[in-house]
Amino acid sequence: MTRPAVVRAAGLPERVTIYEVGARDGLQNEQEVVPLQVKEQFVRRLLAAGLPIVEATSFVHPRWVPQLADAADLMANLGETGRDLPVLVPNERGLDRALELDLRHVAVFGSATETFAQRNLNRSYDEQFAMFEPVVRRATDAGLTVRAYVSMCFGDPWEGAVPIDQVVEAGRRLLDLGAGELSLGDTIGVGTAGHVTALVEAFGAAGIGPERLALHFHDTYGQALSNVQAGLLAGVTTFDASAGGLGGCPYAQSATGNLATEDLVWLLTGLGIEHGVDLDALVTTSAWMAEHLGRSSPSAVVRAMSSAD
Amino acid sequence: MTRPAVVRAAGLPERVTIYEVGARDGLQNEQEVVPLQVKEQFVRRLLAAGLPIVEATSFVHPRWVPQLADAADLMANLGETGRDLPVLVPNERGLDRALELDLRHVAVFGSATETFAQRNLNRSYDEQFAMFEPVVRRATDAGLTVRAYVSMCFGDPWEGAVPIDQVVEAGRRLLDLGAGELSLGDTIGVGTAGHVTALVEAFGAAGIGPERLALHFHDTYGQALSNVQAGLLAGVTTFDASAGGLGGCPYAQSATGNLATEDLVWLLTGLGIEHGVDLDALVTTSAWMAEHLGRSSPSAVVRAMSSAD
Repeated sequence: MTRPAVVRAAGLPERVTIYEVGARDGLQNEQEVVPLQVKEQFVRRLLAAGLPIVEATSFVHPRWVPQLADAADLMANLGETGRDLPVLVPNERGLDRALELDLRHVAVFGSATETFAQRNLNRSYDEQFAMFEPVVRRATDAGLTVRAYVSMCFGDPWEGAVPIDQVVEAGRRLLDLGAGELSLGDTIGVGTAGHVTALVEAFGAAGIGPERLALHFHDTYGQALSNVQAGLLAGVTTFDASAGGLGGCPYAQSATGNLATEDLVWLLTGLGIEHGVDLDALVTTSAWMAEHLGRSSPSAVVRAMSSAD
Repeated sequence: MTRPAVVRAAGLPERVTIYEVGARDGLQNEQEVVPLQVKEQFVRRLLAAGLPIVEATSFVHPRWVPQLADAADLMANLGETGRDLPVLVPNERGLDRALELDLRHVAVFGSATETFAQRNLNRSYDEQFAMFEPVVRRATDAGLTVRAYVSMCFGDPWEGAVPIDQVVEAGRRLLDLGAGELSLGDTIGVGTAGHVTALVEAFGAAGIGPERLALHFHDTYGQALSNVQAGLLAGVTTFDASAGGLGGCPYAQSATGNLATEDLVWLLTGLGIEHGVDLDALVTTSAWMAEHLGRSSPSAVVRAMSSAD
């Protein structure tokens, strides 16, 4: 199989953690409900491909995301394996379900902007922190780790460019609640490399180093991997990605969603950065899921490696 | 219209020249012959969108590229405008045609590898330079500028990873013949960012600075823009791109071709690097050409901006 030549570059980390979001962030936008057994197999195959963290599902109310109505069943089916996989909990009700299943890792989903907080969380920007406070406190008290997503960190469809200080403030407040890691999301994919550098540096200036940050890019405007590269140069070592590029903006085409894990793996492999992922196994998994969903993967690597077979 | 926030980054050039290859490199892989009038309009619209250099066509024998059999007619129709547009001349016969039309800029197309030289040029690696020698000499004697493409600079489908020294040697020999600029091509899209840095640095160590280099990336594995970013950091200020992502590897799908000019423009705009291109006009042009070709553009920016209308 074709692989990039490995040529290291100065100033990059030795190892990167890929946080796989395809099973949750990817599938949640699918209109056709994916059968429980397919989801379970998807998660197991992602783990078998060497992905160190696979976010499995979300304990969101089925009214909002019917696709994930089977979240508890999925976690039950995954058994002991599932206990180590993070799940999204939008609120205390979601946390209750995670605690009932004795899970070890949860994530909350905040917003850097007022408008998206209101539209996605039905709360004001300030009110979101009050909603997250008992979730994060009770989770950490119970010994769970908590990741906090910060969405709309670069641009917001209603507010335009998002001030960097505002993103740092949102992240700071989530960390102050007890979250262990922030995932900074370019939810609509408008950010470019210099913006990434500036954002990570602004967090650093606020005393929040890159070891507490993950970066979550969308490829809406083709910028995801160049943004990853800027993040790597700024010292970030955790990157979110979605197998096969599943998911993304509901108002855009499928080719413009989450950064595809395969494309990220290709970059890291070429740079000689350790990631632990078996690219063949991952591509096979994404091709299998694309077949299940009835459309080709938007991942460049999945397309190229599949057509080369 | 959505635009990236402009956030400059350290160590990047103030201004970049985009060398537009869609009308030649893009269209030459199209099976259905595009009418002459559509090609002429395409070139004129690309120029009107602010692209400073638009390679118009290739004086290749029609037996090899039937799509470009109308090359002389296109240049005649473009009149005085066309005299400033570069055209590819594979050999002395091609140069004769360019000289007959009194054109001012030509390009030759070499290979960094033995196998691709034999397959694409029907010459050995060494013999190609003998073939190019009279082309470059006669062109420069007549006052024309000569660009030299070097293909397969990162990987070769038959030979695998291409040694950097070998690429530098090929480039050195083409410059010694009298070429003014090299366009280093990742013809199969396998290169990653560290490889780009190392290649540009190796040219520098050989006394060939980044001002004599252009970089030509394919998005086969999604790496094109992160490779551009590495090139920018290494001091390169000329990048090839194809409007709407036209063209690319004949053996891969349409989504895996040339770097789309629009995606490059988005990156440069976000980085605050001058490029002179009107993105709206360019996207409209690429959407028009995609409609003519009967399929959607693989450019993320064209897709996102078209679906947002």
